[in-house]
Amino acid sequence: MTDDYTPPKVWSQKGQNGGQFASINKPTAGAQFDRDLPVGRHPLQLYSLATPNGQKVTIMLEELLEAGHDAEYDAWLIRIGDGDQFGSGFVAANPNSKIPAMMDHSVTPPRRVFESGSILVYLAERFGAFLPADPTARTEAMNWLFWQMGSAPFLGGGFGHFYAYAPVKIEYAIDRYTMEAKRQLDVLNRHLADNRFMAGEDYSIADMAIWPWYGQVVAGKLYGDAATFLDAGIYGNVRRWHDEIAARPAVQRGIMVNKTSGEPSEQLWERHDASDFQTRTQDKIGTD
Amino acid sequence: MTDDYTPPKVWSQKGQNGGQFASINKPTAGAQFDRDLPVGRHPLQLYSLATPNGQKVTIMLEELLEAGHDAEYDAWLIRIGDGDQFGSGFVAANPNSKIPAMMDHSVTPPRRVFESGSILVYLAERFGAFLPADPTARTEAMNWLFWQMGSAPFLGGGFGHFYAYAPVKIEYAIDRYTMEAKRQLDVLNRHLADNRFMAGEDYSIADMAIWPWYGQVVAGKLYGDAATFLDAGIYGNVRRWHDEIAARPAVQRGIMVNKTSGEPSEQLWERHDASDFQTRTQDKIGTD
Repeated sequence: MTDDYTPPKVWSQKGQNGGQFASINKPTAGAQFDRDLPVGRHPLQLYSLATPNGQKVTIMLEELLEAGHDAEYDAWLIRIGDGDQFGSGFVAANPNSKIPAMMDHSVTPPRRVFESGSILVYLAERFGAFLPADPTARTEAMNWLFWQMGSAPFLGGGFGHFYAYAPVKIEYAIDRYTMEAKRQLDVLNRHLADNRFMAGEDYSIADMAIWPWYGQVVAGKLYGDAATFLDAGIYGNVRRWHDEIAARPAVQRGIMVNKTSGEPSEQLWERHDASDFQTRTQDKIGTD
Repeated sequence: MTDDYTPPKVWSQKGQNGGQFASINKPTAGAQFDRDLPVGRHPLQLYSLATPNGQKVTIMLEELLEAGHDAEYDAWLIRIGDGDQFGSGFVAANPNSKIPAMMDHSVTPPRRVFESGSILVYLAERFGAFLPADPTARTEAMNWLFWQMGSAPFLGGGFGHFYAYAPVKIEYAIDRYTMEAKRQLDVLNRHLADNRFMAGEDYSIADMAIWPWYGQVVAGKLYGDAATFLDAGIYGNVRRWHDEIAARPAVQRGIMVNKTSGEPSEQLWERHDASDFQTRTQDKIGTD
């Protein structure tokens, strides 16, 4: 119980609000400056950053390549802290100004695909991969994919924000979102007690969507000491599933793409060719 | 700036937290008591409540029927305030314990479909309706459907909670989520300046997903005085689109199904036959 604020009848902005990402938050949408997006040589052009939502798509693209599909792509870096997502080219690709956004240049005019979940479905259907063919298993994969899209805003925008990023620690908000994050982890933990992967026996886009958020938070990769705070050790089935997926070579490559933080050995700022992972030198990583 | 709370190293529950819906929030998942779900005579069995997420699906089912598809269904009431979603039958249909959940009894064993977005895609694919056939328009519908799933937790779980439901008014949280709700409304308003519907010329499941949340908040149907607080009059394109969809007979029927609040003339607690809308008497509404 922290406040006795009385809201006005009509809200108005009072300067910046929101901690670490405050400068990129506004109550309006649309382009803020003119800037075209770069276009490389492959049909699939990705504009992204290695947040969990970005990692979903680079994991999928690397899994497709690993499985022999012709899913070559260019991955361009969008620095959301610098406001790249408000350039006119990016807004044309995604009017919501969030990463990831993808353009498919195999059709004319190029087709835009935005929202990480939509990109995963698009790629799964385009290549016929990572969505089960069996109708019941396919439905289950779609159930869990949509579950991730509707649930993670409570983990990221809610728990992550109030626990790690907000400029003040608000007990009510931390309690609200911690309880929900733990409930969601328990949903997964119970499901993964009886299932190897989210849709059953087959690894699918549902796993690729859920792993970067819930897998990584249990493994201690997100939000500082959050794994301790959430008592993540009790979610043993989630951890078992995390570890199996983390060992996949495509996942190990996918999480590096468009990554600009952490150890230099974990970073590949832009990806334009499969050989970029092998020849990853300082100039491929880029310089700040 | 409202608090100087220091979180513990490991979180623990301190009694109930969360205002109006506090009693149904827990940090664990799973069934809390044994109760089978009822099953009616139609292949599609819906277990829901007329919140915006519930209304998406009843609008879709009524639109399918209006268009001549054989989408007859039974809609059973799940009173989330009473905890119906924690019964063993409901948890088997949706391990996330949220409405809506659907069982398709046209296959053996019956197939579960949960998450409103997944149900919309499932019905669109099963009946070949309300997802455009053109690949670019279909992709655009999926983009916006996933946009709704990832965005509305900020409108409902964020703005709606802190503005209308939380037991205290926390200025920081209200400002955070109001700014995001307004940004999202501006995204829609700009898109609908150039598009009759979300995916272009064709009304689709993207409209059915977005309308119950963003259409109804602009029209003053959600969260008390929220339309005034959000200055909803500036989103004229959203209002135009809301009004066109609100006039559709299937929408007018869909929003009544599983509705237990508001005027008695707006309520149909359960729906088992198309004639229920015409013969809607007090016993069809139900009694508390």
